[in-house]
Amino acid sequence: MSRLDAVIVGGGIIGLTVGWKAAAAGLRVVVCDPAPGRGASWAAAGMLAPVTEATAEESELTRVGLASLTRWPRFAADLAADAGVDVELRQDGTLQVAFDGDDRRALDELLAVHRRLGLDSQWRASRQCRELEPLLSPRIRGGLFAPGDWQIDPRVVVTALIRAFANRGGRLCRSSARRLHFDARNSVGGVELAGGQVLAAGAVVIAAGAHSAVLGGLPPEATPPVRPIKGEILRLRADPEDLPFTRTIRGTARGRSVYLVARSSGEVVVGATMQEAGFDTTVRSGAVHDLLHAAIDLVPAIEELPIEETLAALRPGTPDNAPVLGPSSTPGLLFATGHHRNGVLLAPFTADAMLEVLTTGALPAEAASLGAGRFR
Amino acid sequence: MSRLDAVIVGGGIIGLTVGWKAAAAGLRVVVCDPAPGRGASWAAAGMLAPVTEATAEESELTRVGLASLTRWPRFAADLAADAGVDVELRQDGTLQVAFDGDDRRALDELLAVHRRLGLDSQWRASRQCRELEPLLSPRIRGGLFAPGDWQIDPRVVVTALIRAFANRGGRLCRSSARRLHFDARNSVGGVELAGGQVLAAGAVVIAAGAHSAVLGGLPPEATPPVRPIKGEILRLRADPEDLPFTRTIRGTARGRSVYLVARSSGEVVVGATMQEAGFDTTVRSGAVHDLLHAAIDLVPAIEELPIEETLAALRPGTPDNAPVLGPSSTPGLLFATGHHRNGVLLAPFTADAMLEVLTTGALPAEAASLGAGRFR
Repeated sequence: MSRLDAVIVGGGIIGLTVGWKAAAAGLRVVVCDPAPGRGASWAAAGMLAPVTEATAEESELTRVGLASLTRWPRFAADLAADAGVDVELRQDGTLQVAFDGDDRRALDELLAVHRRLGLDSQWRASRQCRELEPLLSPRIRGGLFAPGDWQIDPRVVVTALIRAFANRGGRLCRSSARRLHFDARNSVGGVELAGGQVLAAGAVVIAAGAHSAVLGGLPPEATPPVRPIKGEILRLRADPEDLPFTRTIRGTARGRSVYLVARSSGEVVVGATMQEAGFDTTVRSGAVHDLLHAAIDLVPAIEELPIEETLAALRPGTPDNAPVLGPSSTPGLLFATGHHRNGVLLAPFTADAMLEVLTTGALPAEAASLGAGRFR
Repeated sequence: MSRLDAVIVGGGIIGLTVGWKAAAAGLRVVVCDPAPGRGASWAAAGMLAPVTEATAEESELTRVGLASLTRWPRFAADLAADAGVDVELRQDGTLQVAFDGDDRRALDELLAVHRRLGLDSQWRASRQCRELEPLLSPRIRGGLFAPGDWQIDPRVVVTALIRAFANRGGRLCRSSARRLHFDARNSVGGVELAGGQVLAAGAVVIAAGAHSAVLGGLPPEATPPVRPIKGEILRLRADPEDLPFTRTIRGTARGRSVYLVARSSGEVVVGATMQEAGFDTTVRSGAVHDLLHAAIDLVPAIEELPIEETLAALRPGTPDNAPVLGPSSTPGLLFATGHHRNGVLLAPFTADAMLEVLTTGALPAEAASLGAGRFR
């Protein structure tokens, strides 16, 4: 097999999206992953929520999130066309509510951030929240409605991406990349697989999520500053004809953060914890308890739903919570990692940026702030 | 196949125990169950706890429970011998604790019941409870120690019973009994299986737990007054070398009842809800939440354990919470059902009583209070 244009290490939503867009642009690409789509992408709730995720300190991340969100409708349509499967983008908005007085004060601060950043969110009194979602607890102290925060099922997306990537001529290698392969000029020239085989490529894209810093052969100065941030998440099962809510509901209840995402399939996602625990992916009883406690506080009818799945996965965290995209300090080695809580939202933006890097060698202006250089 | 001495409908701990003891006594017995041991016996925590289960209103049930408990050591040894497997009876006692002031008042009432009934339980101050079990919450307001309330793993027991029954010449028929079969004199003369085959027998023993009242052909006047009482229960996983407690811990925490049973395998059982919900066996999110909430209140280290299994099963409830044993008003039809929360505890007593019924036609004096006639 002759030299590839790129080998992408990691077949989560980021690796597969970059691979699909690169293959569609005519590049010869392999994505390596022993279990594509089964890491953080499989656990993710799929909120596309730059507004309700916004913080005062991360306005650049909010800008990038909004830029990616506007691409999602076209992205979902293209993906559906290339994959030959339906990809339902739900655009019915997100309601962020407060359970008690302390939660209400935190929500007022979030509203102030939204005003300062010019984001589209609207205050709703408790009664108005319950007009939107009648099964919200009567105890809630009001909420914000963010009409532009959407959601999509990430499991549908990764399944579609695997097909779309193949349909566009990409090759999926269901094997682990063990270490970087260097060529005679000490540039990265491919990867060595777990079985010893070398995939030679003009570029290697690290899209391995929380495992991005542990690939063999990464030079210390070109190791992305990514660490695992554990998240535990539940999937409950409702009757699709009788969902307890339809819009995404987020909130804090007695200080505990939670989000609730309903799918037309009847799946109800309850997430998620945040914990620094190395590479541990145990689902702790305490996490299940805390998530259910907050979810039942906000929507008491949740009590009646069976738990279909409990899962823990690892978000790729970075020092500033924003992704690391583009060239590293080592020739031939590129990053598309560190998406933390926002991998699903940022997939279209990331793919556009990485296609530019693969074809021109540099990040486009809109993504220049996300380069690895900012950590040096 | 010639006529059997008895066919037993239901292969839970009661049906299998009666079958094993009858086969060991030389009777020709078949137990019918499409999934032996997989009903309430599989869900049960296996507490052998006549003292901490005692109530003022059910002193007869307490007497029977104590009578059965004294048989357990010999029963477990005989079972282990006949099955050729170890059956670990844990005799390290049960600690019943109170979390807050209201829970403490309820515990004081339980202690008064114990005094009135002459049961062996001893008051322990909070500090003394924590000397016994150091990971109990420092917030608990004291407890009762019942040295005679033991525990056993019911899954080990039913697995051993299946072997012991076969080793003693009993036959297990993995099929459902569809309806009673009546002989020419309108006596019950066997059962018809789901496939249409008839098993002819001198006696039919209904040991079908919560399903005991729904067998086809049961005459209305000889239908046992048994209804399903749903229980949801969790199994967590601990390191066997690092269990958060060893004695069984029961208690109420902010009004929620819970029990915690630890096995040497590392299994930690957290049970159980009580709900009248027909034959529904959904595990509700609210049940998982409530059990974990109370468990974590009592033993905060529970938070760190993963949940291995959630399960719901149906207890066979009766109007007075005591089992229904012995002859019905229909010749040839016998009951060994209605054991509600106490099937594991009462198995030895039940087997002794039913063997007497099968050989003499009448309940022994010690079990006379448990006959079906008390409901007429």
